[in-house]
Amino acid sequence: MSELITTVLPYRQLHDFTEKVFLALDLPGEDAMLATQVLLSADLRGIDSHGVARLSGYVRLWKAGRINTRPEVKIVHETPSTATMDGDSGLGLVVAPKAMQIAISKAENCGSGWVSVRHSNHFGIAGYHAMLALEHDMIGMAMTNASPLVTPTFAKERMLGTNPIAVAIPAGEEPPFVADFATTTVANGKLEILQREGKMAPEGWIQDKNGKTSTQPDEQKRGGALLPLGTDRSHGSHKGYCLGSVVDIFSAVLSGANYGPWVPPFVSFLPLPQNPPGKGIGHFFGALRVDGFRPREEYLQHIDQWIRRFRKAEPINKNEKVLIPGDPEREMEAERREKGIPLLDNVINDLRKVGNEFSVRL
Amino acid sequence: MSELITTVLPYRQLHDFTEKVFLALDLPGEDAMLATQVLLSADLRGIDSHGVARLSGYVRLWKAGRINTRPEVKIVHETPSTATMDGDSGLGLVVAPKAMQIAISKAENCGSGWVSVRHSNHFGIAGYHAMLALEHDMIGMAMTNASPLVTPTFAKERMLGTNPIAVAIPAGEEPPFVADFATTTVANGKLEILQREGKMAPEGWIQDKNGKTSTQPDEQKRGGALLPLGTDRSHGSHKGYCLGSVVDIFSAVLSGANYGPWVPPFVSFLPLPQNPPGKGIGHFFGALRVDGFRPREEYLQHIDQWIRRFRKAEPINKNEKVLIPGDPEREMEAERREKGIPLLDNVINDLRKVGNEFSVRL
Repeated sequence: MSELITTVLPYRQLHDFTEKVFLALDLPGEDAMLATQVLLSADLRGIDSHGVARLSGYVRLWKAGRINTRPEVKIVHETPSTATMDGDSGLGLVVAPKAMQIAISKAENCGSGWVSVRHSNHFGIAGYHAMLALEHDMIGMAMTNASPLVTPTFAKERMLGTNPIAVAIPAGEEPPFVADFATTTVANGKLEILQREGKMAPEGWIQDKNGKTSTQPDEQKRGGALLPLGTDRSHGSHKGYCLGSVVDIFSAVLSGANYGPWVPPFVSFLPLPQNPPGKGIGHFFGALRVDGFRPREEYLQHIDQWIRRFRKAEPINKNEKVLIPGDPEREMEAERREKGIPLLDNVINDLRKVGNEFSVRL
Repeated sequence: MSELITTVLPYRQLHDFTEKVFLALDLPGEDAMLATQVLLSADLRGIDSHGVARLSGYVRLWKAGRINTRPEVKIVHETPSTATMDGDSGLGLVVAPKAMQIAISKAENCGSGWVSVRHSNHFGIAGYHAMLALEHDMIGMAMTNASPLVTPTFAKERMLGTNPIAVAIPAGEEPPFVADFATTTVANGKLEILQREGKMAPEGWIQDKNGKTSTQPDEQKRGGALLPLGTDRSHGSHKGYCLGSVVDIFSAVLSGANYGPWVPPFVSFLPLPQNPPGKGIGHFFGALRVDGFRPREEYLQHIDQWIRRFRKAEPINKNEKVLIPGDPEREMEAERREKGIPLLDNVINDLRKVGNEFSVRL
């Protein structure tokens, strides 16, 4: 996609701009800073579809009255190691890190903490929230449901979101293991890139509205759907469907959020589903203390050995080494913190339009 | 595979035979009954590769001195919601349900319970253990690592087992949601069936020792490997690699079992890996009280609604309905409890040979 990129902006500049927009939406100062940090962590880590490119989308949701920028986030049900949080229709970017902090403090007290969240909105990248556990020597987990774009195996009806799962695992001398992936064959962002470039999609990513395989990257506009991880029954799509379903149930059936086809859309121009069974979208977070299982030093020695051994696994091509989950994103973040974040023309234009509305200059 | 089946045995007959064999291995009475129940749950649920067909394998491991039939299973580290259990080289079929009971009792006390297990052996089907949580109105989870048959994305070296994950979710009037799947494109058992039938495998299931795609179902005998769920990089094999890795780390790096290429093989004729970093193979279990998140009745109403709505998702073909995970296995179990369990000739012969050694008649 490099030929489409025209501007590279320093992280600091993008951060200040985004923070001012969030302040203009009347977020309290601390929340504006937090939301900015969460949103931009996607740009830093190279998950461009989930970063500032979505800022105008959040603004439109706010205009449609679907985001409460002064939410009273609260725990509505709990045990020593579990809780349900009501996000009071706040930005997921703000609600999610607060829920993750609850999971972490429960883990400090009793070894693990698990928090299901209802009445929230999109929370940026799952990996950000899972990684909050790392500095506490805990494994972090984060997942969220999302509006339906994905068909279960054998279905032509869209029932699940791309429902990502992130697992962040702390290490000693090695960098941490950070997995963060949609439970579909491919993330929606990759289809958007193909559309911009006028290219076709590989077989196995999407199907049309009748359930036939398709290579049109914009098939969703005509009622098509993303396929669960595995692509088809003979290659395990029922496993991707299981994973997406578990995310949906943990995030929404446990908490009282909307699930399946009732999850509200991110885009403000689509109507809300009728007769919703819950409130907003749902997330699920977990924190597990590594010294809840074995002494910390012993754990760190073995996770380092695991990481080193897997990194040395014999590659098929010498030029394409075996990666540890999180390697590419960490390298991208180091590069973009130094050299800045490349943005597409249409994203820049979109940001300027948002800025103009609130008298904030990019 | 039906043309290869020659004998259908009643569940009771198979149960009595298996129990007597376990008793002959000097398992205490209760353990022999438990091991039998766990092993045969695979045959009942239609996962034929993990049931009595493996009995002779367990016996050979016992002969090789690799299974302790009188283990002192104990908790070696714990917090209120977490624990590590040492299986003392016991049968996984016995160690695993005991570990799951610890997870359940921790969940009773503080909302959730998580138990990592070291020094164990193969535990049958993951689904059995996860389902133990259901009658307690808890979500159950079970996973295990296994000897290396699977390559990470970009690798030609086998580093991971088929590392299955099971999640059992209780429902009200509806039957429970039970997902139980290997984190590979396809379970090893399906390749064994193709070998017996002399058929080729679809592309995307396996690769040869050089990392080239292959359709030979016995490719593993020549250094080939199973592929992670997703099959190749462009269809998300890095996600399957992430899942298999998380199972390995939770099961073994947390507990002190062997991980990655050091996991000992199930078959007794292969040597144990050199310089093992831990003890035996590892498992991981979890139990989450649904009323740790919302009132039980509310939860049951919504999980039932989830299940009903997904079952009604519009199918591609009217004759192939959308399934809820666990549907096919539950139907199989009902049928096989009534009509008996079909066994292949070579499995029957194998069982009779085992029986003869211990003067137990099938």
